[in-house]
Amino acid sequence: MYGQAWLDYSKPSKETDRMISKIDNRIQIDPAFLKDVCIHSAIREYELFSGRIVDKIVGTENLDHKFSIYLKQISEPDLGGEGYIINVTNKVVIAAKTSAGILYGMFRFIEVLRSQEIKSPMSIESVPSNDFRMVNHWDNMDGSIERGYSGDSFFFSDHQLIVNERTHTYARLMASIGINSVAINNVNVKDEANFLMTRKHLKPLVQLAQLFESYNIKLFLSINYAAPIEFGELESADPLDPSFISWWDQQSKWLFEHLPNFGGYLVKADSEGRPGPFTYGRTQADGANMLAKAVGPYGGLVVWRCFVYNCQQDWRDTKTDRAKAGYEAFMPLDGKFMDNVILQIKNGPMDFQVREPVSPLFGAMKATNQFLEVQAAQEYTGQQRHLCYLVPMWKEILEFDTCHDVNSKVKDIISGKTYKRQFGGMVAVINTGNNENWTGHDLAAANWYGFGKLAWDTNESPESIAQNFVRLTYGLDPLVEETITKLLLTSWSTYESYTSPLGIGWMVNPNHHYGPNVDGYEYDRWGTYHRSTNSAIGVDRTNNGTNYTGQYHETWTVKYSDLHNCPIELLLFFHRVDYKYVLPSGQTLIQYIYDTHFDGAMQAESYYASWLDLESKLENTVYKRVRDRFLHQKEHARLWCDVINSYFFRKTGIKDKWGRKLY
Amino acid sequence: MYGQAWLDYSKPSKETDRMISKIDNRIQIDPAFLKDVCIHSAIREYELFSGRIVDKIVGTENLDHKFSIYLKQISEPDLGGEGYIINVTNKVVIAAKTSAGILYGMFRFIEVLRSQEIKSPMSIESVPSNDFRMVNHWDNMDGSIERGYSGDSFFFSDHQLIVNERTHTYARLMASIGINSVAINNVNVKDEANFLMTRKHLKPLVQLAQLFESYNIKLFLSINYAAPIEFGELESADPLDPSFISWWDQQSKWLFEHLPNFGGYLVKADSEGRPGPFTYGRTQADGANMLAKAVGPYGGLVVWRCFVYNCQQDWRDTKTDRAKAGYEAFMPLDGKFMDNVILQIKNGPMDFQVREPVSPLFGAMKATNQFLEVQAAQEYTGQQRHLCYLVPMWKEILEFDTCHDVNSKVKDIISGKTYKRQFGGMVAVINTGNNENWTGHDLAAANWYGFGKLAWDTNESPESIAQNFVRLTYGLDPLVEETITKLLLTSWSTYESYTSPLGIGWMVNPNHHYGPNVDGYEYDRWGTYHRSTNSAIGVDRTNNGTNYTGQYHETWTVKYSDLHNCPIELLLFFHRVDYKYVLPSGQTLIQYIYDTHFDGAMQAESYYASWLDLESKLENTVYKRVRDRFLHQKEHARLWCDVINSYFFRKTGIKDKWGRKLY
Repeated sequence: MYGQAWLDYSKPSKETDRMISKIDNRIQIDPAFLKDVCIHSAIREYELFSGRIVDKIVGTENLDHKFSIYLKQISEPDLGGEGYIINVTNKVVIAAKTSAGILYGMFRFIEVLRSQEIKSPMSIESVPSNDFRMVNHWDNMDGSIERGYSGDSFFFSDHQLIVNERTHTYARLMASIGINSVAINNVNVKDEANFLMTRKHLKPLVQLAQLFESYNIKLFLSINYAAPIEFGELESADPLDPSFISWWDQQSKWLFEHLPNFGGYLVKADSEGRPGPFTYGRTQADGANMLAKAVGPYGGLVVWRCFVYNCQQDWRDTKTDRAKAGYEAFMPLDGKFMDNVILQIKNGPMDFQVREPVSPLFGAMKATNQFLEVQAAQEYTGQQRHLCYLVPMWKEILEFDTCHDVNSKVKDIISGKTYKRQFGGMVAVINTGNNENWTGHDLAAANWYGFGKLAWDTNESPESIAQNFVRLTYGLDPLVEETITKLLLTSWSTYESYTSPLGIGWMVNPNHHYGPNVDGYEYDRWGTYHRSTNSAIGVDRTNNGTNYTGQYHETWTVKYSDLHNCPIELLLFFHRVDYKYVLPSGQTLIQYIYDTHFDGAMQAESYYASWLDLESKLENTVYKRVRDRFLHQKEHARLWCDVINSYFFRKTGIKDKWGRKLY
Repeated sequence: MYGQAWLDYSKPSKETDRMISKIDNRIQIDPAFLKDVCIHSAIREYELFSGRIVDKIVGTENLDHKFSIYLKQISEPDLGGEGYIINVTNKVVIAAKTSAGILYGMFRFIEVLRSQEIKSPMSIESVPSNDFRMVNHWDNMDGSIERGYSGDSFFFSDHQLIVNERTHTYARLMASIGINSVAINNVNVKDEANFLMTRKHLKPLVQLAQLFESYNIKLFLSINYAAPIEFGELESADPLDPSFISWWDQQSKWLFEHLPNFGGYLVKADSEGRPGPFTYGRTQADGANMLAKAVGPYGGLVVWRCFVYNCQQDWRDTKTDRAKAGYEAFMPLDGKFMDNVILQIKNGPMDFQVREPVSPLFGAMKATNQFLEVQAAQEYTGQQRHLCYLVPMWKEILEFDTCHDVNSKVKDIISGKTYKRQFGGMVAVINTGNNENWTGHDLAAANWYGFGKLAWDTNESPESIAQNFVRLTYGLDPLVEETITKLLLTSWSTYESYTSPLGIGWMVNPNHHYGPNVDGYEYDRWGTYHRSTNSAIGVDRTNNGTNYTGQYHETWTVKYSDLHNCPIELLLFFHRVDYKYVLPSGQTLIQYIYDTHFDGAMQAESYYASWLDLESKLENTVYKRVRDRFLHQKEHARLWCDVINSYFFRKTGIKDKWGRKLY
C-alpha cells in the first residue's frame, strides 16, 4: 500500500465536486499534439481527478459546450518548451508550445481547482525559472537507500529494477511539481549497479524510461567512472587513454541507441573514495569532458558532482580547510568544461548542514554550466523524524547576492540566463522510499513538493508553497492549514536552534549522522572541526586563518571577515570566538548557546502540543503517525539541548544565567 | 591455507632431531586404554611430531628397547581425571588415570622435547588447577564473528556447520593447552543459530562432537533462552510456565540422546536486548534452574552469563551505576542455583576494559558454581592490531585476594575447591578465525596459548608462559626469545599507558570499539561515563557517591574508598579527582595523563624498532605481517596519545610541563 501524497483525489470537497460538475465530460485536443505521450498523461490525470472517463475530441478551438477543456498549441516564444497559459472563461483553455507544457498546465489547473482558488475569468501564465529541475535518488540495487529514512527502494529490489503501479504514481507526483530529470541510482555506484547501464537490465530500464517520457521526465543514470576497470576490461581509467575513451564511446553509443529518453550520466568521481581523473594526474575537466564527448553525439549530458575534498585529513593539521576544497578544485577550470557538462554544486561548501554559507563557486564560475544541489533527504536535519521544512533555506540560498554580477542574483546564475549558458538548474537529493507515506515523516513530503515548486518558480515564497502543500494534502480546514503551515515555516529555525550552533555544523554521531555528538567528528579524518577549548570555539576562516573568506567576492570577503559584521547565524563558521564574547543581542556567546538550545527544545515540545489539537481533523492513521514523530522530536530535541549545553558547561565551567539544569 | 601456531613441527632443530632419533619407533599402550579415543590422538600427535609412523604394542610395562614410550594407567587419586606424570629415565613413561591425562601428558612431553628442556632422569607431574578450562566463540552461522579480528569463522559458513582438516588442527591446538570445553557459537543467538540445536544441523554437529571427544573437549552450544517463542511454538518464556518447561525438557532429551559428548548450554539472558526471565518477573535463578532441570538427567550443565545491566541508561541519571548491576542481580541468589548451573562472571564489573577492579561477586558468592570469564579476543585492548599480551592481567586477577576467606585466594574460589563446589573454572572469549595465522596478529596467539596454560596451572608465571610460547612458535634463537618475550610482557602496560587512563575505561569509538574517542560513550545509554569537566574527572564510587565500593569485603571497601590508598591504576575507577590533585609520584593527575600517554606512544614506537631487528631470524611472511602491525600500532598509539592529551588540554587549558606538542 502507498498513499498519493498531495495527489490524493479520493476526498474531494463539496466545492471541488461542484466545480467538476460544471465542466463537461469532453476534452478537446489540438491535432498537433495527437501523438504526444504527455497529452495522454494530462488527460488521464484529469480523469483520475474527476473520477470520470472523458471523451477525447480532436479539433481546433470550437467548443460547443458550456464549460469544456481545450488543450491548445501556441507558439509564444516566452513560454519556452515547458511553460503554459491557463485561461478560464466559460471554458478552460490550457495552452502551451509542447505537450509537456500542457501536462504541467493540467496539473496546475487541477491544483487550482482543488485549492478552490479558481475564478472566472482567470488567467495563469507560468514559465519555469530553471530549465532543469532534477532529483537524485541514492537507491542501491539491493533495495537499500543511502540516507534513506522512509523505507526501502521502490526502484530496486533484490538487484533488479522494478517498474510497477507505484513507479507510475511516482512519475505523476514528480510531474505534478515540475520535475523533469531523475537519476534513479546511488552516485556511489557499487556491485550490481555497475551493470545497470548494460544489456542485463535493459528491459525494465526501457520500460521505466518510457513511463518517465510520458511525464516529461528524462532518465539519468549514476555511473561508475571507472566501470571498465570494474568490469575487468581495462586496467586504466585515465581520461586521456585512448582505450578508456573508446570504451566509453562504445558504451554510450550502445546505451543511447537502446534506451529511449535517456538523459545522460550523473558522476561522483574523486570523492569519498570514488575513483576519478585525479588518480591519473588529470583534472576534473579531463574526466568530465571525456564522458561528454562520448554522449555528445546523442544529445546526452554529463552531470559532474563537485563534492571533491580530502576525506583523509589529519585532525592535527590546522592548515587544510575542507571548506576551500571545492573552489580550489573547480574554479581554475572555469570555461574548460564542454557545453554538455553541468557541474553539480552543493549549496554550501561543506555538506548539507543545517546552516552553511552559500558555495563561493556560485557567481564566480561564469563560463560553466551549473546545477545547485540541495538535499531534501534530511540527512543532517532530523532524518525525517524531526520536522524540518527546508524550502526557507533553499529560498535564502537562491536570494543570496553573490555580488559577482551587478545585474543579477544567484538564481539567474544558476538557471544560466545571466551568462547565457545552455544548461542550468536545481537538483535535490531525495529519498522517497516504500513507506506508505513515501517520506517517513508525512510532513517531510513538504520538502519534496516544495523543492519541485521552488525549482519551477524561484519567486514563489516558502509560505505559499507550504500553504498549498497543506491544502492539497490535508484539505481546506482553516485550523489544519494554519497549524501545519506554522509548524512547517518555523521548523528549520527550531531545528537549528537546538542542534549545532551558529553555523559550526557537524556535532552529530558519525556515520549515521543522527543525534548529538559534539566531538563526534572532532578527532576524525573528515575535515569538520570545531576545535573548541575551555575558552573559545570555531575555526578562523578569515585571512588570519585559512582564508576561506578570500574565495568570495570582495563584498562578502569583507563582511564575513569582520567579526562584528558577519551574519550572526554564520559566526562560528567564519570565526574563532571566545565564549565570553558579547553578541549584538547583548548575550555572551555561551549564554546564546544555552538560550537557543533551551528555547529550541521548548519549541519542539510545543510542536507536539499543537499537533494534538488536530486529532479530530485528520485521518487517524496519519494523525497518529505524525504524533509519534513529534513525540520523538520533543524528547530528542531535549537530548540535543542537554548534550550540547552540558558539553559546553563542562568545558567552560560557566553556569547558565537563568539557572537552568545543566549536567 | 592455515598455520599450526605453536604446534608447527615442520622445522625441528638438530637437537630435537637427535632426541627423536634416540627414541625407538614403538609406543606401548596399557591394555586398559585400548578403546579410548584420546589415546589414539596422543599417539597420532607423536607421529605428527616425529614424522614417523610408530608401532603400537599393547602390553604392560616391559620395554625391551633402549628408549621407548609407555602409556600407562595409574590410579593415584591426586592426579584427578586429567592429571599426568611423565617419567624420563632410559625410557619414557607417561602415566595417568585416564586417556585424557595421557593425551595432555603427550602434548607436554613433546613440548618439553621441543623446548630442549628434557633431562634424564626427569619427572614431571601435573594436575590442572581448574576442572573446567573453556573457550567461548562468538561465531555466527553466516560466517561472521562478533568481535572477530582474524578473519571469518571456520566453524560456520553460509549457515552450515563445517568439520574439516582445519577443525581437526583446531582441536589439537586446544587440547595441547588443556582446553576441555568449547562453545562454538555466539552467545547472541540469532537467525539460523536458533536451529543449531535441532535435527537440521545434527549430522555435522555429531561429527564435530566426536572429533572434540577424541581431544577430551566437551561441546557446548549457546542457546536462545526464548527459542520456543522464536520457533513460533510457544508464546511465553516464563521459566515457571509448564509448557515452557516441558519444551526445554523435550528439546534437551532429544539433544542429549542424539549428540554424543554434549556438555550443555551456554546462555546469555536478559542482557543487551537478549530475552530472559526478567521479562516475566522471574529471577535469573528461575531461568537457569529451569534449564538445569532439563539437562540434569543427562549430566548436562548450564553455563549462565552474569553480564546483566541496564543498557538503556540515561546519561543524565547519575544515581545508576552499571558497575553495581552484576552484584545486585546475582548476589541475593547465592545458593539458589542448582548444582549443575555455573555462573559465568566477567573478570571485572564493566566489560573487558584494559583495567578494571576484580568483580565483587568473586569470593562473595560462596554457594554458587562460578566460571571466571576473560576475553582473549582483544575487543578493548587493540583488536589484535596492537600487541597486548593479557596473561599478566589474568594472573593479577587470579592473585587478587578477595579477603572473603582467610585461608585462600580467589583462584581457589574459582576452581571451587575452597567451598567444595563441584564445578569451577576459567573461560575465555576467543576469536580465532580463518586467517592463516588464526589470530590476525601472529603474536596474539600468545593470549590463546597463554589462557589455556594459565587455566591449567594458575601458578605458572606470565613470563614462563610467554617464553614457552616464543620457543614453540619461533624456535630457540636467544635474540628472538628475548625480544618477543619482552615485547609480550610489557605490552599490556604499554597499551594501558596510551589509552584510557587510571582505570576509567571506555573512551573508544562506539560500536566497533577501536581507536580513541574520549566522549564516545559519554552521552550515550551504556552506563559508561567519565563525567569530566574542566576541573575534575571520574565517578565517585565510594559511599559518598554510588557506593559500588560497598560491594567488596570491608578490607577492600576501606582501601578503595580512600583516595590516598586506592591503587593508583584504579584511581579514576573509584574516585572523582581534580586534575591538579597530586599523586604519590609527585605528578599532578593531568601531568600523569600527559606523561603516561607520551611515554606509551614512544614505547609503541620502540616496539616497531625492536621488531625490525628480527628480520633475518624469522620466516619472511611472518616477519612482514607482524612488522606491518607494529607500524600501525606505532602510528595509532600516537593518535591515541594526541587525542587523549589534546582532549584534556583543551578542556583544562593546562599545558604540559615539558612543553610537548598538544593540539
